[in-house]
Amino acid sequence: MGNCSNCNLCNTADEKLHSFISTLDVETSHHRVESQKNKCKFGTQGVCCKLCANGPCKITPKSPRGVCGADAHTIVARNFLRAVSAGSGCYIHVIETTATNLKSVGENNGDIKGVATLNYLAESFGIDCSDIHEKATKIADVILKDLYKPKYEKMDLVEKLAYAPRFKKWKELGILPGGAKSEVFDGIIKTSTNLNSDPVDMLLNSLTLGVSTGLYGLTLTNLLNDVLLGEPEITTAQVGLKVIDPDYINIMITGHQHSMISHLQEILVSEEIANKAKDLGAKGFKIVGCTCVGQDLQLRSVHYNEVFSGHAGNNYTSEAVLATGGIDLVLSEFNCTLPGIEPIADKFQVKMLCIDDVAKKANADFLGYSYDERENLSNKIIASALDSYKNRRSKISINIPKDHGNDDTITGVSETSLKKFLGGTWKPLIDLIASGKIKGIAGVVGCSNLTAKGHDVFTVELTKELIKRDILVLSAGCSSGGLENVGLMSPSAADLAGDNLKEVCKTLGIPPVLNFGPCLAIGRLEIVATELAEYLGIDIPQLPLVLSAPQWLEEQALADGAFGLALGLPLHLAIPPFIEGSDVVTNILTNDLVNLTGGRLILDGEIDSTADTLEKIILEKRSALGL
Amino acid sequence: MGNCSNCNLCNTADEKLHSFISTLDVETSHHRVESQKNKCKFGTQGVCCKLCANGPCKITPKSPRGVCGADAHTIVARNFLRAVSAGSGCYIHVIETTATNLKSVGENNGDIKGVATLNYLAESFGIDCSDIHEKATKIADVILKDLYKPKYEKMDLVEKLAYAPRFKKWKELGILPGGAKSEVFDGIIKTSTNLNSDPVDMLLNSLTLGVSTGLYGLTLTNLLNDVLLGEPEITTAQVGLKVIDPDYINIMITGHQHSMISHLQEILVSEEIANKAKDLGAKGFKIVGCTCVGQDLQLRSVHYNEVFSGHAGNNYTSEAVLATGGIDLVLSEFNCTLPGIEPIADKFQVKMLCIDDVAKKANADFLGYSYDERENLSNKIIASALDSYKNRRSKISINIPKDHGNDDTITGVSETSLKKFLGGTWKPLIDLIASGKIKGIAGVVGCSNLTAKGHDVFTVELTKELIKRDILVLSAGCSSGGLENVGLMSPSAADLAGDNLKEVCKTLGIPPVLNFGPCLAIGRLEIVATELAEYLGIDIPQLPLVLSAPQWLEEQALADGAFGLALGLPLHLAIPPFIEGSDVVTNILTNDLVNLTGGRLILDGEIDSTADTLEKIILEKRSALGL
Repeated sequence: MGNCSNCNLCNTADEKLHSFISTLDVETSHHRVESQKNKCKFGTQGVCCKLCANGPCKITPKSPRGVCGADAHTIVARNFLRAVSAGSGCYIHVIETTATNLKSVGENNGDIKGVATLNYLAESFGIDCSDIHEKATKIADVILKDLYKPKYEKMDLVEKLAYAPRFKKWKELGILPGGAKSEVFDGIIKTSTNLNSDPVDMLLNSLTLGVSTGLYGLTLTNLLNDVLLGEPEITTAQVGLKVIDPDYINIMITGHQHSMISHLQEILVSEEIANKAKDLGAKGFKIVGCTCVGQDLQLRSVHYNEVFSGHAGNNYTSEAVLATGGIDLVLSEFNCTLPGIEPIADKFQVKMLCIDDVAKKANADFLGYSYDERENLSNKIIASALDSYKNRRSKISINIPKDHGNDDTITGVSETSLKKFLGGTWKPLIDLIASGKIKGIAGVVGCSNLTAKGHDVFTVELTKELIKRDILVLSAGCSSGGLENVGLMSPSAADLAGDNLKEVCKTLGIPPVLNFGPCLAIGRLEIVATELAEYLGIDIPQLPLVLSAPQWLEEQALADGAFGLALGLPLHLAIPPFIEGSDVVTNILTNDLVNLTGGRLILDGEIDSTADTLEKIILEKRSALGL
Repeated sequence: MGNCSNCNLCNTADEKLHSFISTLDVETSHHRVESQKNKCKFGTQGVCCKLCANGPCKITPKSPRGVCGADAHTIVARNFLRAVSAGSGCYIHVIETTATNLKSVGENNGDIKGVATLNYLAESFGIDCSDIHEKATKIADVILKDLYKPKYEKMDLVEKLAYAPRFKKWKELGILPGGAKSEVFDGIIKTSTNLNSDPVDMLLNSLTLGVSTGLYGLTLTNLLNDVLLGEPEITTAQVGLKVIDPDYINIMITGHQHSMISHLQEILVSEEIANKAKDLGAKGFKIVGCTCVGQDLQLRSVHYNEVFSGHAGNNYTSEAVLATGGIDLVLSEFNCTLPGIEPIADKFQVKMLCIDDVAKKANADFLGYSYDERENLSNKIIASALDSYKNRRSKISINIPKDHGNDDTITGVSETSLKKFLGGTWKPLIDLIASGKIKGIAGVVGCSNLTAKGHDVFTVELTKELIKRDILVLSAGCSSGGLENVGLMSPSAADLAGDNLKEVCKTLGIPPVLNFGPCLAIGRLEIVATELAEYLGIDIPQLPLVLSAPQWLEEQALADGAFGLALGLPLHLAIPPFIEGSDVVTNILTNDLVNLTGGRLILDGEIDSTADTLEKIILEKRSALGL
């Protein structure tokens, strides 16, 4: 996993962050990689089962079956499907919350910022009315109706959202999802003791969950957030720990459910509220981005430039953000909110609030969000922030490494803003690919973990390797947070690209790594892929497009990954998803799957060979297209 | 866990079963206890976390937090809540299937066998119509509506089903469940990486899941099955491997969703179908009970005496049932269907069919059940059984230990049949308790595992200890299967009871252990407890009533257990539910909880001390009631 030779911290791609953490008098996840370095091989290989009181059982050559008789294939597949189900559940919770908020906005004639997206959705769903609030309500209703269907009723919007050749393929394979919440529910039941034991059935089920996760949890969440929070526009952003301005009362946010804090964002800039901060000697309030919610606010920063101070960093930067001392309140609405921030918040006397009980932190107060209570909630949050600021500032010292991050990260890239940038058509991009100026596209996406070479190390180094080979990289997730903080999303990163891609970047004034923002925006990449395929009249697996979630961390990433596999894309992971204890499961995912969906899993823990494999696939796809 | 000194099998309370298995040329779960005897201490204590790619992590004195910062309390609580959620999901799936079948029966004017129960439910739910089919449809509708509510909408029937003082208590504690499926869904999300870290919140959430599991998954499932399959009536049954009659084509059933096979049960006895069996030289078809579905068919055996050959045994008897060679087809509709039966089915050339995809076994064919397709499905099952019989009987040898089991097990005990037996009132039972002839009541319930002293050992020995102390035992679950096969549910078992209880049993002609049937019937015990408390005008925790699920096996048992704790009952488990790595979690469940619901967990791996503790609690409760 890579440990720094000079200290007891894990490696990180972000040297300035590493230096900062190494000076801290707090323990962070970067420290704990060392104390947790002895990994259980049974857990790592997925052959440990803790489901029942006869266990835990583990599969070894001398004990090839658990007490109940489950073999390695059953146990591995069961663990994998349960993880995908839980991960899917997380994203489906996010779209449910977002759709519920859209419904409330519609019913209450609230603020709709993305009318173009609203109209696009209404048209796609066959909703025919002129009033935008009625449209919003109806869009929300059809989504919520789909989410709550029983498993035996297929969701209506899948066909409307999916690329037609993919829909056809999924139907052929029998992997079209029923109601998304029931699919998650059944995935959990299926993986319970003495229920399903069939690895093939369970792996196909993972693909079903991938489809519902991708189209609803990812794609639709982005689009609804575009309606509620405003559509992304390409712009330049400041990133890193430097975004924290100690002159303000700083609220650090973590999560994935941004529509829950839109009211807060709106009122924090009001004079009345700002004056409350001023009364205490602060210049006002700022929201400091952390984890995907920060990445998403950055994406939409043209709409929130007054209150959003910028994105400080990804999941494994959050402990450092708190340890600057510059944060007065942590507001958490979902994951990825590390338990590791709790003792640091305590030490720095930072108040923590959670507004969704699924994300209740041990030391936080819980204030349940609902649309109807949003004013009360915002007032309580503000009061809490004021209180915390007043109590703590005289007692703690602030230490913000102002050299961490940069001022010229390009952000705001979405399927819409990118196409607009290209002149309203994908043709320029396709021409560049056809001419070989851009060899192909790699989505380097997902989380950051600390174990694939270190914090963001695999992500950053693989990305450098890919752009060097003239492969344009698109990123979404905590991976973006890492890539931007080390400058790969700044225009100057063009110099790290191969000659062809460098020329493209210099000509267009873009970096070689495009910043789609949060992990949710993996759904935007899917739209880009669909639109490119549609333009070319081919199916998605034919595109010279590869995916890597090199530093996947959470179960959610596996659900995303299952979407990539269902789309028919090659998907690289640097750390195997606890499946290697079963050759059956591993072979299905890495080999057999290509004959089903066109996708396949690539497991490779080394950077150069991964880049070789991904480039080779891109070249093969080019060749098949006659390029 | 106890291993036989003469062979490599685990101990079992059932000596004849043990002898039979020891002669077999197949590997069973009883053999694998030995090969899986080295238990991982981190898994056992619940301090292993496999949720993310930084892991697996384990908590030790030198590594008190996982990489993310989660400590033992968070990890243990998360593992526990996830298990309870999954277990709840299983039972909620069962009530959903059952309610869906009731709805179909209502809509199609199908056969309603339990009109009294139907009327009781309609009245309880405030459904006012005279047509029984309309009633059935409406009952199903209100249940399904509740199951599918979002989490933020409380279920309507909880107040109608629960004992008023308990409902009040749950409301005070804020543990009333929202839609049962969403509660399961949220329990899974909550326990994902970097979401909830608060052990108190997660443990309270377990109680919420206990309430929905108990009232819907258990209580209501029984009642709907009473409507669909007929109400239990007290009768005498043959049990054990001896019920298998090789002259018939034998279909072994496993699961918990009996209404899915009611059509099959009906037509198997028709002359036309029986003739098909006779054409092949068999006398006809028989259904051989195994796991809870067998226990439930036994309970209702007065309605199915022609086709049901009897209950052969519980979960860990199922491999032996197959290894008799007398089974021609395995029909599985849910758990507990051990993966261990698959190689035995292969060896004995027994065809396996699954009719619910959540329970798809690796070597089985899948035939999806739906009410509309029930005739086709039954025909396919019958064709498959005929085919299997024809192909295999000449190739395998049959070896049924006819000395295993007995002919005088008392069955058919339910809240209704027991009250009827007592003369239509609980007064005789209460008088016996008041007079001290019966000291108190113990529900010895739940699964069988192989590790609490051995197969059914703790269950049987604890039960003997309790009845010796004049404590009447009620049983439901695989525990019943164990208790009946060793004769404790036969009237002659009265001789094993203490003098007072013996006298009661002899006078009434009942055994000292009453057989409520499947684990689902833990819901019937709840009705008995409620009615006793209601009669006395006290709350449930005041009753001289204790619960033990000594040999809990599955996550489902933990969801049941959470119901017991929510009801305010003391609940003993012989094997800790993977919580001992957190003193916080352990203390909450074993101590603090008594101040919240009145219930508490008792962890004790020894039989005598468990009996002492349970007796002491009963004496304390008696004393508090002035008895």
